[in-house]
Amino acid sequence: MTIRSRLPALLCACALGALAPFSAQAAPDKALEARFDALIDPALMGSWLKTMSAQPIHVGAPHNKANAEMTLAQFKSWGWDAKMEVFQVLYPTPLEVKLELVTGPGAPFKATLSEPPIPGDDTSTRIKDELPAYVAFQGDGDVTAPLVYVNYGMPADYDALERLGISVKGKIAIARYGAGWRGLKPKLAQEHGAVGAIIYSDPRDDGYSTDDVYPRGAARPPGGFQRGSVADMTTFPGDPTTPGYGSTKDAKRVSRQDAETILKIPTLPISYGDAQVLLKALTGPVAPAAWRGGLPITYHVGGGDDAKVHLKVLSDWSLKPAWNVIATLKGRERPDEWVMRGNHRDGWVFGASDPLSGHVAMMNEAKALGALAKAGWKPKRTIVYTSWDAEEPMLLGSTEWAETHAAELKKKAVIYINSDSNGRGFLGVGGSHAYQHFVNQVSADVTDPQTGVSVRDRLRAALAVQGVEQPANPRATALGRIAADPSLDLPIDALGSGSDYSSFLQHLGLAAINLGFGGEGESGGVYHSAYDTYEHHSRFVDPGHAYAGALAKVAGRMVMRLADAETPQQRYGDFAATVAGYLTEVKALADNRRDEAMARTRLLAAGAYRLADDPTVSRGDPPPLAPSPKLDFAAMDAGLARLEVAAASFDMALASKGANLTPAQKSRLDAAILPLEQRLLREKGLPFRPWYKNMIYAPGRFTGYGAKTLPGIREAIEERRFDDATTYIALTALAITDYATGLDAATAVINGG
Amino acid sequence: MTIRSRLPALLCACALGALAPFSAQAAPDKALEARFDALIDPALMGSWLKTMSAQPIHVGAPHNKANAEMTLAQFKSWGWDAKMEVFQVLYPTPLEVKLELVTGPGAPFKATLSEPPIPGDDTSTRIKDELPAYVAFQGDGDVTAPLVYVNYGMPADYDALERLGISVKGKIAIARYGAGWRGLKPKLAQEHGAVGAIIYSDPRDDGYSTDDVYPRGAARPPGGFQRGSVADMTTFPGDPTTPGYGSTKDAKRVSRQDAETILKIPTLPISYGDAQVLLKALTGPVAPAAWRGGLPITYHVGGGDDAKVHLKVLSDWSLKPAWNVIATLKGRERPDEWVMRGNHRDGWVFGASDPLSGHVAMMNEAKALGALAKAGWKPKRTIVYTSWDAEEPMLLGSTEWAETHAAELKKKAVIYINSDSNGRGFLGVGGSHAYQHFVNQVSADVTDPQTGVSVRDRLRAALAVQGVEQPANPRATALGRIAADPSLDLPIDALGSGSDYSSFLQHLGLAAINLGFGGEGESGGVYHSAYDTYEHHSRFVDPGHAYAGALAKVAGRMVMRLADAETPQQRYGDFAATVAGYLTEVKALADNRRDEAMARTRLLAAGAYRLADDPTVSRGDPPPLAPSPKLDFAAMDAGLARLEVAAASFDMALASKGANLTPAQKSRLDAAILPLEQRLLREKGLPFRPWYKNMIYAPGRFTGYGAKTLPGIREAIEERRFDDATTYIALTALAITDYATGLDAATAVINGG
Repeated sequence: MTIRSRLPALLCACALGALAPFSAQAAPDKALEARFDALIDPALMGSWLKTMSAQPIHVGAPHNKANAEMTLAQFKSWGWDAKMEVFQVLYPTPLEVKLELVTGPGAPFKATLSEPPIPGDDTSTRIKDELPAYVAFQGDGDVTAPLVYVNYGMPADYDALERLGISVKGKIAIARYGAGWRGLKPKLAQEHGAVGAIIYSDPRDDGYSTDDVYPRGAARPPGGFQRGSVADMTTFPGDPTTPGYGSTKDAKRVSRQDAETILKIPTLPISYGDAQVLLKALTGPVAPAAWRGGLPITYHVGGGDDAKVHLKVLSDWSLKPAWNVIATLKGRERPDEWVMRGNHRDGWVFGASDPLSGHVAMMNEAKALGALAKAGWKPKRTIVYTSWDAEEPMLLGSTEWAETHAAELKKKAVIYINSDSNGRGFLGVGGSHAYQHFVNQVSADVTDPQTGVSVRDRLRAALAVQGVEQPANPRATALGRIAADPSLDLPIDALGSGSDYSSFLQHLGLAAINLGFGGEGESGGVYHSAYDTYEHHSRFVDPGHAYAGALAKVAGRMVMRLADAETPQQRYGDFAATVAGYLTEVKALADNRRDEAMARTRLLAAGAYRLADDPTVSRGDPPPLAPSPKLDFAAMDAGLARLEVAAASFDMALASKGANLTPAQKSRLDAAILPLEQRLLREKGLPFRPWYKNMIYAPGRFTGYGAKTLPGIREAIEERRFDDATTYIALTALAITDYATGLDAATAVINGG
Repeated sequence: MTIRSRLPALLCACALGALAPFSAQAAPDKALEARFDALIDPALMGSWLKTMSAQPIHVGAPHNKANAEMTLAQFKSWGWDAKMEVFQVLYPTPLEVKLELVTGPGAPFKATLSEPPIPGDDTSTRIKDELPAYVAFQGDGDVTAPLVYVNYGMPADYDALERLGISVKGKIAIARYGAGWRGLKPKLAQEHGAVGAIIYSDPRDDGYSTDDVYPRGAARPPGGFQRGSVADMTTFPGDPTTPGYGSTKDAKRVSRQDAETILKIPTLPISYGDAQVLLKALTGPVAPAAWRGGLPITYHVGGGDDAKVHLKVLSDWSLKPAWNVIATLKGRERPDEWVMRGNHRDGWVFGASDPLSGHVAMMNEAKALGALAKAGWKPKRTIVYTSWDAEEPMLLGSTEWAETHAAELKKKAVIYINSDSNGRGFLGVGGSHAYQHFVNQVSADVTDPQTGVSVRDRLRAALAVQGVEQPANPRATALGRIAADPSLDLPIDALGSGSDYSSFLQHLGLAAINLGFGGEGESGGVYHSAYDTYEHHSRFVDPGHAYAGALAKVAGRMVMRLADAETPQQRYGDFAATVAGYLTEVKALADNRRDEAMARTRLLAAGAYRLADDPTVSRGDPPPLAPSPKLDFAAMDAGLARLEVAAASFDMALASKGANLTPAQKSRLDAAILPLEQRLLREKGLPFRPWYKNMIYAPGRFTGYGAKTLPGIREAIEERRFDDATTYIALTALAITDYATGLDAATAVINGG
């Protein structure tokens, strides 16, 4: 369910300025990789894509099952040891959806809630058994209440509403997509007392304001809407009724009423064609400038009795099967070290871009690896390819599988490499920062289909130009400076959530990488709509499936190099430098929060807010902020120093002695390194969400997909939970110190221990 | 013709951090000012406003003449020595205007070019003899050509077009209002080879995206358009056929063909109702993200033969009378020292906000001053009030009068204080920075009608809040820091152009102040349209005319205090500090231009632009930038140091000895100070525009109304004319050194010289 921004997807952020020194790793097998590349076939991927996206492929749909069976059969035919692993997951489907404007100008008006076929798009003419407008794990209900526009429906929007004197209590909130993850919108509306929620796609964000609408262009047409899941991912993903354990056939289940991640209020997504009628009916204050979208109306906040809507959602809450396909190519030397690769297979309707564009690349990799294996190549380690089902409703397939096999994975999994939607443009990679240099090496060896330079050099050029063209954007200029120096690695992103790596990285503490191309081919306008079709994808997102080829070549190289590596590919100095960058950020954040509280206090005392306000618009004073203590970061400073020394020692030892290790040492080194990332976990997890255990990487509680790094510390400061901040400074320091200890043990192996 | 932004109009920018030390000036006569305040009558101003805006008041219109005669009669009745001074100015009026879409989807379509009455607005039902869609001093013509969308039509937009491979040569350019002054749009289109130009008001900028449209709210309705002048103000204002001298009855005139400031291509303004049809017909590349407005369409650049328009404009180029009213209240001690105050009286249609809202405040001041004079108060210096005609077509009334009386003004004028449109909100002041402290003193003594604190304290609160709420905006945070410290004066703005102060400040070198309230009452949506009516103004811009009262109280105080001052009210340290700030800015600008050229060279050599570009959108490399030399600012550093010493010496001398000066010394001091600002002039003026002689303040060549400070240096660096930059470093240094010398002479008078 990945969605990509319009800007070049960046290898980015975080550890700005990673040096690329010593590199004693054995050279990759270039001849093998050339043979692999020759087996990547865009036309073949295109034909799979067409077949697999010919009918709706949501969870439980017949064509989804057919695709699972085809994938299984193909893997087997390519020589893999493949099997179907089925889970019984709670997956609600709509029995009745209804949305009407019952009072106000334009009433009565009945929202469409289904997507009309698009001329020239054959697939869309087969819209029939698709899911209507629906978001999974909303709360069912039948309510009639005044409508309030809440902008993106994020916390700051509710602060603004409060200053306008508008409450959502007992009302139905309408939010636009964007700014934060979908599921936060009804969740926050519910927490503020709303009895229902509507989410619409504003044309400013992915409709006619961004591009010609489909079929003339790639953007969202007036009748298109975005389905999705609103299960409370920020608490935990997976089946809401089996928290932390697998949804196997006989699993004990929490009742729907007690399931923590199922919302309590009915929620529907709608098109901007429908939203325009509802929003036009609103009165009350004119919406703040930043709240206005691209509809040809004046946006009002509403909230009065003059515009009421009737919202009804009734769902079938039965269990449905999730068909995961798990395929193995057994390693010749270290069968119990698994290099894992996955992509989900289920979609919301036809799912051509999301997820099949990534899935077919993964299939081609598997076919090529199978052919190489048949021709005699045997990987040193075991390779595991996974075709996940039920990702869309909330990472169900991968999460239930990972929870079921947690113990084995913690023993055996070297890394999990994920992809999802893919399109034309620039390589974007996020993941565990010890792999940053490895990612740079791989991406320097794959050619960009449009320009003929390496995908890394193309991204380097884009970042360098962006840095110069956006002088007022500090992040862009910092990245631009790195990109302009070819001796520096490009940074990789931290991972939040939104695709199947989440359980592996954040729950089990395994190393993970997520990758994909994008930024030029645009699927955002049809994201989770019935128009994400083969026709749309082939015309607008990845013509000729050239970037499916590029994805297969990057991901395939990662798999082969990690499966065959003589010694670890990680460089821990990059991880330490990244953590150092995060620590600098959270210290600045703490200072900023303190300054903010002092400024608020001073301005309130001076009556400045009331004097600055337009008295004809009823804004009150903002609430006072409790004084922010000066936080003591000494434990983190010490932990980081410890980590930096351990990382430098390891990297130097490996660089100088890695080539001369005995087979026994190599084996012991692998054994020491494999569980290392798990030391970043705290068993009791993060505040409010024990499922998320990684002290370095988490999805943000109030961003959703967007990552929060050093989350225990950072979110506590952001939310002014200063006691938690102090607690998590200690806990995070403990984790990185433990990590350093583990790293020292690995260094000792290299040094002859 | 002032237009105000939606944000609080700021006393702002420039000299951040002016200290407010010693202040030995004699206290103002608070009793007199209280009597003055009692004579300010919002209801009376409202009734004048209603009468004067009852019919169209453009140059030559019968109601404009009636208003001139009424103003003259009133001044006389209030005891002023008043007269009418008439100039014969070139003022073209439309004989025929026509705009049609002749090919493309939607064709044939004929643009409306007139504004329909608005239900509930009585004035608008009298639309009859108003000017249709028209911009004065466009070039007349009859052309049919492809249409190209050029965004705001500013230089950077043409750079972007070039990289898209789109030329405007032989085509008709359509630009939206905003980002730079109106007249630059057809001028730049013409320079790029366009044969015609259209300017429209995008709803994103002042239509439904900003507020409910009139009559529900204040914003521009779909049929409203913005008239205006497109005479090349940045070269010189005033009558294009009498450059630099008065348009008296017998003045020798340049022919229309040779008049440098009249455009050569036909140009029309249109409504967004009309523009939507034209823009929707365009094909070609989708417009860059920053180019897209609020219409419910995908913006394309166009330029192809598939969307052609026919544009015809034919004008009557005869001379029309401009009726200036000049009123004098003779000074008792120093009749040859003039404190001047003015506001224009002509509008584009009914002109309620622009300009009558400021004009009625000025009238009430004059009535009150007249009453005080009748009751025995006699100002020490002469007070001159001016009601300008023909400001809208290009400051014709004030410029021709100033050019005609240049010699006398240079001898006698102490200062010119200007206002224009006025509305609810915050005080905004720009002007000569030696008056910054004076402005702060006055604005601390006038009460804000809505909050009851002083207008300065209200602005201080707004700036302090804005500084905290916009942490990423360096200007806002710098202003916020100043505002948060009550011991500091709030900075005033530098003046560019757009109202009648221009000749006085920039051509004659007189001190000037421009002031007005705004930021809450909104006239922007009806700016220069037929909907700028009494009804609109009274409902949305200044209900109860309360801020007309505030304006009269601020401006009246300025006039009274300056007319009666025992010793100079200026504080030259503020001016020196402001210049120091500007010098820091232009040095940083020079560094920035050098960095930019180096970065461009490096990225071009690496082929980075082509690699970063989407190859399906034809962008070429940007042009290389010539290497930027390291500029030598030593002369400016020395000149500034000289100025700082002179300013400090004067301020200290005045503070310590000002109270003890003899009458003869005071008189000699006035005589030494009065011509001081003229030392900032360079007789040969600025590059490309000798009419603009002030080396500190000018309207920007590519901003229009927006000021450029140290313009000879700053614009040369911006435009990469590095030889000019070196020349103007020397010339500007000469001017401030000469100014310091003049200041030393004044200091000598105080010190007993």
